[in-house]
Amino acid sequence: MNRRRIVVALGGNALGNTTQEQLQLVKTAAVPIADLIEEGHSVILTHGNGPQVGMINLALSFAAQHDVVPADAPLPECGAMSQGYIGYHLQNALQNELKKRGIDRSVATVITQVVVDADDPAFSCPTKPIGGFYTREQMENLCSEKGFKMIFDSGRGYRRVVPSPKPVDIVEKDVIFDLVEQGVIPITGGGGGIPVVKNEFGYTGVCAVVDKDFSASVLAQRLQADLFIILTAVDAVAINYGKPDQKSLRKLTVEQAERYCLEGQFASGSMLPKIQAAIRFAQTGKPAIIAGLGNAGDAVSGKSGTIITM
Amino acid sequence: MNRRRIVVALGGNALGNTTQEQLQLVKTAAVPIADLIEEGHSVILTHGNGPQVGMINLALSFAAQHDVVPADAPLPECGAMSQGYIGYHLQNALQNELKKRGIDRSVATVITQVVVDADDPAFSCPTKPIGGFYTREQMENLCSEKGFKMIFDSGRGYRRVVPSPKPVDIVEKDVIFDLVEQGVIPITGGGGGIPVVKNEFGYTGVCAVVDKDFSASVLAQRLQADLFIILTAVDAVAINYGKPDQKSLRKLTVEQAERYCLEGQFASGSMLPKIQAAIRFAQTGKPAIIAGLGNAGDAVSGKSGTIITM
Repeated sequence: MNRRRIVVALGGNALGNTTQEQLQLVKTAAVPIADLIEEGHSVILTHGNGPQVGMINLALSFAAQHDVVPADAPLPECGAMSQGYIGYHLQNALQNELKKRGIDRSVATVITQVVVDADDPAFSCPTKPIGGFYTREQMENLCSEKGFKMIFDSGRGYRRVVPSPKPVDIVEKDVIFDLVEQGVIPITGGGGGIPVVKNEFGYTGVCAVVDKDFSASVLAQRLQADLFIILTAVDAVAINYGKPDQKSLRKLTVEQAERYCLEGQFASGSMLPKIQAAIRFAQTGKPAIIAGLGNAGDAVSGKSGTIITM
Repeated sequence: MNRRRIVVALGGNALGNTTQEQLQLVKTAAVPIADLIEEGHSVILTHGNGPQVGMINLALSFAAQHDVVPADAPLPECGAMSQGYIGYHLQNALQNELKKRGIDRSVATVITQVVVDADDPAFSCPTKPIGGFYTREQMENLCSEKGFKMIFDSGRGYRRVVPSPKPVDIVEKDVIFDLVEQGVIPITGGGGGIPVVKNEFGYTGVCAVVDKDFSASVLAQRLQADLFIILTAVDAVAINYGKPDQKSLRKLTVEQAERYCLEGQFASGSMLPKIQAAIRFAQTGKPAIIAGLGNAGDAVSGKSGTIITM
């Protein structure tokens, strides 16, 4: 048995849209993760937070607008809330699943800040839509009152967009490394981490959203992981997606993957960042895998998913 | 220099009422904590979350009522959100303060579950008020629709009350112990921890609020701390509080403290739980201190605050 250090990135789709849904879905998500741990692998779990941070941000803004709470909460704070909330559900479900199997391993959620470059070009061109949809009048108010950048989403209204800078480093990487060495299963980098920039005061939170697969890839590199797995809604990477000649791929070299990216084979905001995150990790010489949520175990043993290697 | 393992419980008053206030106040709170670390002590930081969890719970309930978000969030989930949010601010401020002083120590927030007894009598008698104030009509709706227990708060309206069971154990204690051993400063047990009960499935979150000083006391006992400090808004414990013969106390034995509790010297929901939490820790044979936020360093060296010993 080949025991490996594995960073697993769980898609936001594995978590549902409400607290009640999430509480149930994490029990399902915990099973393939526990399988990997039972096989002896050292797992570091990361996850998305799209719907969750949207919900929290929206609720606090709405309640603040109606003077129900004293002020709304900026995006880094909402991201931190979502890490606490999702982390609690995941750690609880994984602890319970491991205990059921008689496996004595600790699980801990670590609130994670991710360093981004203040000069990242993303800051001058926000592209990541978050939160709800607004009318033109609401949009005009939000832009003038709060300085939001908004885009028009055909048929659904106006929506706020925020910058999505690239992750450079993980502030808590040493702590996470220590936990892994101690045999703990850390849940970390949730929602791509809380974006912070380095300045004269140390690190300061910034209004942005970091892609969770990019952050997970940086984390996997810093932790010297043997394997990086992105678990998502599809069982494998496909080219010509949605066309009659759609073809699932079981193996990809970095070179092939880069070529398909250039050809526009992968949807931006969906499969493209996953492939790019996998490529970055695979360039370290270790493999990355993109697979369906339920097939994590099979993906590690090469029976499912798409493996990307140098 | 006597290097000690110190559990510090930070009062909710040290954190303010909005995200903007908190972001500033944590910078002040970080100074005395960093002082202790600079003196060579091993610090474990816990904190309250009253206003924060109230804000989050209220905003999500209000937004759900108005169909702005798909559903509201139960109390354990709101508590987890508050741990992530407050933990992020505290760890960031403390990291920055330590870096400024050239101290290379890691700080990490660990999302914490606290075990309570499903048979705790508190569950049949909810006493802890949370969230906002309601009219009689709203109160009647909330009681019948959601099964809330509500009390009448003279002059301000009806308010929800939840059980406040006693903490029995800390689920993540081993992880926190490991972090301390590695030289990391953990932020943990925020808001008294997320209350969970043990059942056939493992641990399950319950709708309750655990007193943060009681949880911090259990944590201090489990971590075999040398000292437990409760930082609050007053500089020392006083008897005959608010009366002409008010008297500050610099030293108290467990026996004296217990007698004053029986005499009703300390306000329930305010100084009383702090004294009780300090007594429980002091019964292990190690001292507990109650002191003002800015005087943590002086309190440790015996120049400020009230020390409670066997």
